Amino acid sequence: MTPEALSALSARFGEQLSTAPAVLDAHGRDESGLEHTRPHAVLFALSENDVVDALRLSAAHAFPVIPYAAGSSLEGQLIPVRGGLSLDLSRMNAVLDVQPGSFQATVQPGVTYPELNRRLRPHGLFFPVDPGAEASLGGMASTNASGTGAVRYGTMRDQVLQLRVVLPGGRVIQAGSRARKTSAGYDLRHLFIGAEGTLGVITELTVKLWPLPSHLVALRCPFETVEAAAACAVAVMTAALQPERLELLDAEGLRAVNRFEGTAYPEQPTLWIELASASAAGLDETLALCRELCLDAGALEVAAARSPAERAELWQARHHAYYALKALYPGHSSLSTDLCVPLHHLPQIIAFARAAIDEAGLQASLLGHVGDGNFHVLFHAEPDDTATWNRIQAVYDTMTALALALGGTCSGEHGVGLHKRRFLPLEHGDALDVMRGLKALLDPDGLLNPGKILPD
Amino acid sequence: MTPEALSALSARFGEQLSTAPAVLDAHGRDESGLEHTRPHAVLFALSENDVVDALRLSAAHAFPVIPYAAGSSLEGQLIPVRGGLSLDLSRMNAVLDVQPGSFQATVQPGVTYPELNRRLRPHGLFFPVDPGAEASLGGMASTNASGTGAVRYGTMRDQVLQLRVVLPGGRVIQAGSRARKTSAGYDLRHLFIGAEGTLGVITELTVKLWPLPSHLVALRCPFETVEAAAACAVAVMTAALQPERLELLDAEGLRAVNRFEGTAYPEQPTLWIELASASAAGLDETLALCRELCLDAGALEVAAARSPAERAELWQARHHAYYALKALYPGHSSLSTDLCVPLHHLPQIIAFARAAIDEAGLQASLLGHVGDGNFHVLFHAEPDDTATWNRIQAVYDTMTALALALGGTCSGEHGVGLHKRRFLPLEHGDALDVMRGLKALLDPDGLLNPGKILPD
Ligand SMILES: Cc1cc2nc3c(=O)[nH]c(=O)nc-3n(C[C@H](O)[C@H](O)[C@H](O)COP(=O)(O)OP(=O)(O)OC[C@H]3O[C@@H](n4cnc5c(N)ncnc54)[C@H](O)[C@@H]3O)c2cc1C
Ligand SMILES: Cc1cc2nc3c(=O)[nH]c(=O)nc-3n(C[C@H](O)[C@H](O)[C@H](O)COP(=O)(O)OP(=O)(O)OC[C@H]3O[C@@H](n4cnc5c(N)ncnc54)[C@H](O)[C@@H]3O)c2cc1C
Repeated sequence: MTPEALSALSARFGEQLSTAPAVLDAHGRDESGLEHTRPHAVLFALSENDVVDALRLSAAHAFPVIPYAAGSSLEGQLIPVRGGLSLDLSRMNAVLDVQPGSFQATVQPGVTYPELNRRLRPHGLFFPVDPGAEASLGGMASTNASGTGAVRYGTMRDQVLQLRVVLPGGRVIQAGSRARKTSAGYDLRHLFIGAEGTLGVITELTVKLWPLPSHLVALRCPFETVEAAAACAVAVMTAALQPERLELLDAEGLRAVNRFEGTAYPEQPTLWIELASASAAGLDETLALCRELCLDAGALEVAAARSPAERAELWQARHHAYYALKALYPGHSSLSTDLCVPLHHLPQIIAFARAAIDEAGLQASLLGHVGDGNFHVLFHAEPDDTATWNRIQAVYDTMTALALALGGTCSGEHGVGLHKRRFLPLEHGDALDVMRGLKALLDPDGLLNPGKILPD
Repeated sequence: MTPEALSALSARFGEQLSTAPAVLDAHGRDESGLEHTRPHAVLFALSENDVVDALRLSAAHAFPVIPYAAGSSLEGQLIPVRGGLSLDLSRMNAVLDVQPGSFQATVQPGVTYPELNRRLRPHGLFFPVDPGAEASLGGMASTNASGTGAVRYGTMRDQVLQLRVVLPGGRVIQAGSRARKTSAGYDLRHLFIGAEGTLGVITELTVKLWPLPSHLVALRCPFETVEAAAACAVAVMTAALQPERLELLDAEGLRAVNRFEGTAYPEQPTLWIELASASAAGLDETLALCRELCLDAGALEVAAARSPAERAELWQARHHAYYALKALYPGHSSLSTDLCVPLHHLPQIIAFARAAIDEAGLQASLLGHVGDGNFHVLFHAEPDDTATWNRIQAVYDTMTALALALGGTCSGEHGVGLHKRRFLPLEHGDALDVMRGLKALLDPDGLLNPGKILPD
């Protein structure tokens, strides 16, 4: 960034602009553990107008802009590889409108989903996308995030009705409609969802809301092998039990959880299942069916929790798994895969992954949103242990090749960032040229979050 | 089309190409009733390769190509305003693969949804998008069609996992993934869904399937006024009864149905509701709740049907409403609006529409997928009665302006075609420029279904 650009920013934004080293450091990284660099400056936007002016100045002075929300992304999406301005949207965090009669809310992009849910509870409604971190709706839309609720309610892509977006150069458009459905022209919403801030900056979202389920039961089912647990997940889905959540953690995950939480769960591959029904009688029926099915599939036990407190306790283990696993390897770095395949292929790829990890003598555990066919392998190694990192990358590559051959994707929910760009040619073939065309159309000067998604 | 182009097509395609007047006539129109013109030739494609070669020849000889499927669209989408080749995809009608374990099927674009559903029944699965006509999946994707199932399962946009698309010039890409979710790059699927054949030709679709609900009940509830019926529809949705279907027909609709079907239903504005549950006990509970709610909202009766035969009889009236209404005005032309608003605004816009129609002394009836906030006004007038058509257009314009002011859309499901292009500047503002950019990016020579969607 030139000194002129910096002083133009400073003249327009005053105290909202920061070049304090600690602020630059905090905005030069995300949760990927990839090597970080600093942006030249950080702007704390307070309004759409701030965003418009920032993108106008970016165009005028040709500096990159990297939208920044809650900072929880995992693929290097936030790293300012070419420097520039980190555009922090976390202070644009107002819930603008809740319309219970239309099951929708309009929010600024910095609102986090736990905060939105606190605001919705009095209405008996909730927002179902719940990544493991306290992410913002703008960031979640930009990575097409999901979480445990996606198996029942879909991902961010399925929740967004309308977006306001500032385009490079500062033009503001509205994409989509507040109506639940529309066939009026090309769908621009879905261009920006999952675009990781490379095509425009989201300044407002209208999203769908859902009624809080009235009767719920949570189950914990350990199995002998991770393959058996995966096969049971497929059986639960195929039986059309329509679970609210369906999660897997392997034996090492349980070991980590017991250590982290002081619990004493059996250290076996475990499924967590949540079932809902509109009536108590209906829930009893569904639970009986699910219990039988899990036992038939080899569950060693089916522990059920009905009260909110018991359910929270049962879910705690799964929710903290990521940090519990990291804590198992102090001083190590970790790397998470994010493959997703058509559900009927899940047992096959999980068996393959488990075998490949063991054969290569790697330390890794397996967890995931298996009801969607999505699972993560969390690899651990010491930061400088290049030989091990090379073996990890090799296993990662073969797993990904298999997932793509099975019709799957290299990223079920985390996005591409810097990290997965190398998989896109294999996954998309000629479609990658169309993606490049879209980037050139919307951001001809390549100033918005450069270096992300598209391989060089 | 030049004679050279025609002979190149003929040399490549032989008997698959037709210039027979009856064939040209049939391919020069859709169900819009708009003035039709003939294409220069019709090609019956049998494979993706045929589509590739047709688009290569189109690029080489600069003739327009209009994809044509089941021909049921309502907005002039199929009218070859600049002549050219009608590319008939109805013979590409193979169901390629059904994967019950992943709840997905892969089909060629000419497969109709009733045919797909016949193939799915043995698996206990179904495809939920059901427009009133026997439409094809390729055509339905291209208009982002919906129908009675959308209130519960969403529209075509929500069902498509992956598309194969031939781009202008003949390049083939794959968009999306067979995994249930993906965050791997820009979403190209949604560019082609709802694009009405203006950006590419769909040659294969992988779509989501759903388990057939096990216990169902259908209800018919007449009301004193259409406003009361609309308010009840909102109440049913707000109570989170999650109906499978929720449809409205006004008093004139019932008159038309009784005449057409020989039935004797009360000739009052009527809601049709379908409820489902995983258990008989659950269904009883939901039905009791819904009955109470409808009676509280002013339903004059709540007639329930449980057996498949009774349900089919009860739904027949709603399914045939469009043709029943047309039959009420022999020799008249008709025009259908397709507004969709956030649900809590539905009673207001329906009251407004009813009043505007009556004030203008027009003949029109009101029906729709009201659970989505989507309703149609079907206007009737004699073809040459210009004064009446002008009044119709004026009422249509004011209704549309109100829908847009309420955050809604000019098209909930039928698409834009020729007919609604005039509403797009008001609905989309500057976003229309981005849409023009997308068209120019993908179809720089403007050869694919020219003159549709984008206003001149
Ligand atoms: C412990 C842990 C668990 C996680 N679990 C899950 C999980 O279960 N599922 C899942 O999907 N993810 C998960 N994640 C990843 C992460 O939470 C998601 O990617 C999330 O969507 C990021 O949101 P954020 O608000 O932190 O955005 P950031 O990380 O700040 O930004 C994400 C991307 O969006 C862009 N961006 C942000 N705001 C905007 C805006 N307003 N306009 C345009 N672009 C914008 C940024 O430039 C960046 O490219 C997890 C992460 C952690 C650390
Ligand atoms: C009585 C009646 C009731 C209806 N009810 C509904 C309803 O409830 N809901 C609803 O949404 N619609 C409804 N419609 C409208 C119509 O059925 C839908 O628009 C349907 O999606 C059209 O499908 P089709 O196969 O007939 O396509 P066509 O009419 O043949 O084509 C539709 C459009 O898609 C393009 N196209 C077709 N195939 C392809 C392809 N493979 N690749 C690219 N482009 C392609 C065409 O160029 C055209 O622009 C109704 C129509 C009638 C006549």
